Amino acid sequence: MAKVKKQPRPKAETPKGFRDYFGAEVAQRNAMLGKIAEVYHRYGFDALESSAVETVEALGKFLPDVDRPNEGVFAWQDDDEKWMALRYDLTAPLARVYAQHRNDLPTPYRRYAMGPVWRNEKPGPGRFRQFYQCDADTVGTPTVAADAEICAMLADCLEKVGIERGDYIVRVNNRKVLNGVLEVAGLIDAMDPSRFEKERGIALRAIDKLDRLGEDAVMALLTTGRKDESGDFTEGAGLTAHQAAIIMSFVSTNEALTKNQNPHIPEGTDFVELDDSTKIAPWNFEVCNYLQPLVGMSKIGQEGVNELREIASLAASLGYYADRIVIDPSVVRGLGYYTGPVFEAELTFEIMDEKGRPRQFGSVAGGGRYDDLVKRFTGQEVPATGVSIGVDRLLAALQAKGRTGEAKLAPVLITVMDRDRMADYQAMASELRNAGIRAEVYLGNPKNFGNQLKYADTRDCPLAVIEGSDEKERGVLVVKDLALGKKLAAEITSNEEWKAQPAQQEIPRRDLVEFVRNALSGSAE
Amino acid sequence: MAKVKKQPRPKAETPKGFRDYFGAEVAQRNAMLGKIAEVYHRYGFDALESSAVETVEALGKFLPDVDRPNEGVFAWQDDDEKWMALRYDLTAPLARVYAQHRNDLPTPYRRYAMGPVWRNEKPGPGRFRQFYQCDADTVGTPTVAADAEICAMLADCLEKVGIERGDYIVRVNNRKVLNGVLEVAGLIDAMDPSRFEKERGIALRAIDKLDRLGEDAVMALLTTGRKDESGDFTEGAGLTAHQAAIIMSFVSTNEALTKNQNPHIPEGTDFVELDDSTKIAPWNFEVCNYLQPLVGMSKIGQEGVNELREIASLAASLGYYADRIVIDPSVVRGLGYYTGPVFEAELTFEIMDEKGRPRQFGSVAGGGRYDDLVKRFTGQEVPATGVSIGVDRLLAALQAKGRTGEAKLAPVLITVMDRDRMADYQAMASELRNAGIRAEVYLGNPKNFGNQLKYADTRDCPLAVIEGSDEKERGVLVVKDLALGKKLAAEITSNEEWKAQPAQQEIPRRDLVEFVRNALSGSAE
Repeated sequence: MAKVKKQPRPKAETPKGFRDYFGAEVAQRNAMLGKIAEVYHRYGFDALESSAVETVEALGKFLPDVDRPNEGVFAWQDDDEKWMALRYDLTAPLARVYAQHRNDLPTPYRRYAMGPVWRNEKPGPGRFRQFYQCDADTVGTPTVAADAEICAMLADCLEKVGIERGDYIVRVNNRKVLNGVLEVAGLIDAMDPSRFEKERGIALRAIDKLDRLGEDAVMALLTTGRKDESGDFTEGAGLTAHQAAIIMSFVSTNEALTKNQNPHIPEGTDFVELDDSTKIAPWNFEVCNYLQPLVGMSKIGQEGVNELREIASLAASLGYYADRIVIDPSVVRGLGYYTGPVFEAELTFEIMDEKGRPRQFGSVAGGGRYDDLVKRFTGQEVPATGVSIGVDRLLAALQAKGRTGEAKLAPVLITVMDRDRMADYQAMASELRNAGIRAEVYLGNPKNFGNQLKYADTRDCPLAVIEGSDEKERGVLVVKDLALGKKLAAEITSNEEWKAQPAQQEIPRRDLVEFVRNALSGSAE
Repeated sequence: MAKVKKQPRPKAETPKGFRDYFGAEVAQRNAMLGKIAEVYHRYGFDALESSAVETVEALGKFLPDVDRPNEGVFAWQDDDEKWMALRYDLTAPLARVYAQHRNDLPTPYRRYAMGPVWRNEKPGPGRFRQFYQCDADTVGTPTVAADAEICAMLADCLEKVGIERGDYIVRVNNRKVLNGVLEVAGLIDAMDPSRFEKERGIALRAIDKLDRLGEDAVMALLTTGRKDESGDFTEGAGLTAHQAAIIMSFVSTNEALTKNQNPHIPEGTDFVELDDSTKIAPWNFEVCNYLQPLVGMSKIGQEGVNELREIASLAASLGYYADRIVIDPSVVRGLGYYTGPVFEAELTFEIMDEKGRPRQFGSVAGGGRYDDLVKRFTGQEVPATGVSIGVDRLLAALQAKGRTGEAKLAPVLITVMDRDRMADYQAMASELRNAGIRAEVYLGNPKNFGNQLKYADTRDCPLAVIEGSDEKERGVLVVKDLALGKKLAAEITSNEEWKAQPAQQEIPRRDLVEFVRNALSGSAE
């Protein structure tokens, strides 16, 4: 065997773009995902955990004639020369799983999945190459009842994890309506689907920017192009004024309706009844009525409007009105594969950005209907719809709102005064644990007691228990309230006060569990 | 751009050696891991989730002068030519994390981690290239109190997930005792550590096979070699009879002690008190006393025996006697990096193997002390000890014992009799969910009612709710008890009986939630 060369020490670091998650962060995310899983499960969705590694062939999106798969995924060759890659989302694996197991799975198949995905992209601040996704999808049914159900479930998930009603909105649009408007505007040529592709791309991106840039900018982008504040020029779609006007009236639906709120419907009305079994929120009803003439004679456009009306109506019959699920024509969603309803959940409360300016928190989840994913494998069209919750963004929102919940307490520290009596200290920790209290014995070198308290400080321990030989003899313990101690240390100035301070208390040994339990119930769990 | 060639359909399959996990399997594993995390957490261990991808350099174990990293990991080159790989366990990443963040982490650092790891190995039946690990480690302390704590915690984990006391045993040995015996047997040359390496390897592997092969075979392997039943010959270590006898008396500790149980200690005694604060289980006490002369003058051997006695004593003071934590010299553990105490948890109940023969379930967790892992990065020795639970094996054990717990109920199915009244059906599902009951509306094509019941069957739905226009008019629902229906279908032979069968019941619409709740509380959750 070749002799191993003397090697410099390896660097202790993650590959660039990767990071580690510690303690509370992991616990908070798991708690949040657990709550979401509970909601998904109650709606009849089943868990699926597919492998992190897929064949590049199954993942798709890659050209057949290049030697190494495209950027975007982490890929490598197996022993048999086959390319494998880490999954870049949870939808592509679902398509593969459904195609592979369709004979054993129920149809429709409702499944949820949560786990890491990997992107081979340039990392940036807050942008990592491994992150969590949390999806729910219904595969195998074309009915928009499936879309409506997912929108309702999304609202339930947000409330379950701690986003209050009023702090979020699920916005729903339909690709078919967009296509109808584009058709009316003359940007779809039924004989040549790829014609006007560039114009449509520019138009969709312009609509997507409405919130940020405003109507004038969108108008410019639809026609001759736009110069931004920095002087950079963005090419326009080159539409005529008439074409642009059609799209603009679509884009400005919300504004037009806000001006012309139907005077016949009193404010605060949750829903109107259209017939015996059809309710709908007035706002959503009006949006659909407004869209109807805009899609004109476009068949796909009419279908889209009808679907939106049905979604709004199903939502209303479940008790979700326009304050939670709203039809909003400005929702575009980036992904090319959506074919019908698209939706996103937005958090509407304000947070401070890096520069201390208030801004709306924004989108935390999105999804929609995609009918072609499984077809790649089987040749058969399999309609599907689903949602993906942005785990990191939602967790950040909960942190901003102070709603991460059980940021579980650090352990009670049993200090070691006499290293020969480790058994006594371990027994104390054990008593506490058996009573359901998190506790640990200091296991570093006990010689320097200051180090033990420093350790407790790093750990943020609420209490430290002390039993020296003197206490042992007298059958007592000293319990230090470290949180209170910190607070007092900031306030106490004289030595006398320090001695009289109540952050340290002597208790009978037998009272350990009871005393600690009471002391902890006082602090914030 | 190059034109995309017409491509054959991709195959819908996982890469070889990978698999998907569905529904109950995922839920059961998560429930089990959640319980283990709770125990780890209560012992003061903090969660850590490191990235799945590490630099090959940080993972280690690879030669510097080969172009492509060794077999064993899935590795690829990043854009900057650096080799990255999927982690193959959770210990190597812990060493990297601790070296990287040691200034911010408490010392000792107790952490737990659970998640998938990947091995680039030949897959086989039941042997996958991605599987779960679930570890707890204490980094930064040499005290065997840390090892004892982990053994106790391991016992608690097993009981928490549903393995009853008496159905498992945590066996503890010490590499130092093994080394002491090897030293006494003349198989360690202090001046030349690599001398007798081969002999030691054969001896250790022989000891490890005691359970399976028996004493005669081990004796043969230590000396001249062994021919097995098939005629295959395994080379021996070539030891003299005297050398072999030293090792054999070590190996046969359990048997020797079983014959010579100390008559002074009445059977059923949990512990004896050695002094004011030292208890120990009698069996463990005797094992240590038996080992003492075997390690003779070997300093490392004496240290090892003392450590074992201390672990047994700490365990006893926590209430873990020899029925749960037992000193057992036959434990070897494969991994080369252990330096002190080693332990494994074995399930002692019998299951049937593939051929229907009863056999003990065997090992589900193992670990020990490894003091050199962090040194690779920092140059400083950082003592550490930890345990890894075999997630798949433990889950299989729980399944064998019927202890997977909440294999949560399949949903109640609301069937669709009239597709225009989807809103009514959705409202029923919503009512049930709001009452905490898992429920879903059938979202496939409702035309063929038989398909709906077939779907309910695939899903294993406990109940189906039916509301046709007739029922709607009369304000009632029909609820089918599908489980009971299945049972009856097997028993009922005539049409008359079928009509009279009680598996189908009409109830007032307003009683839906109450009726379903009662019906479900009757079925097995």
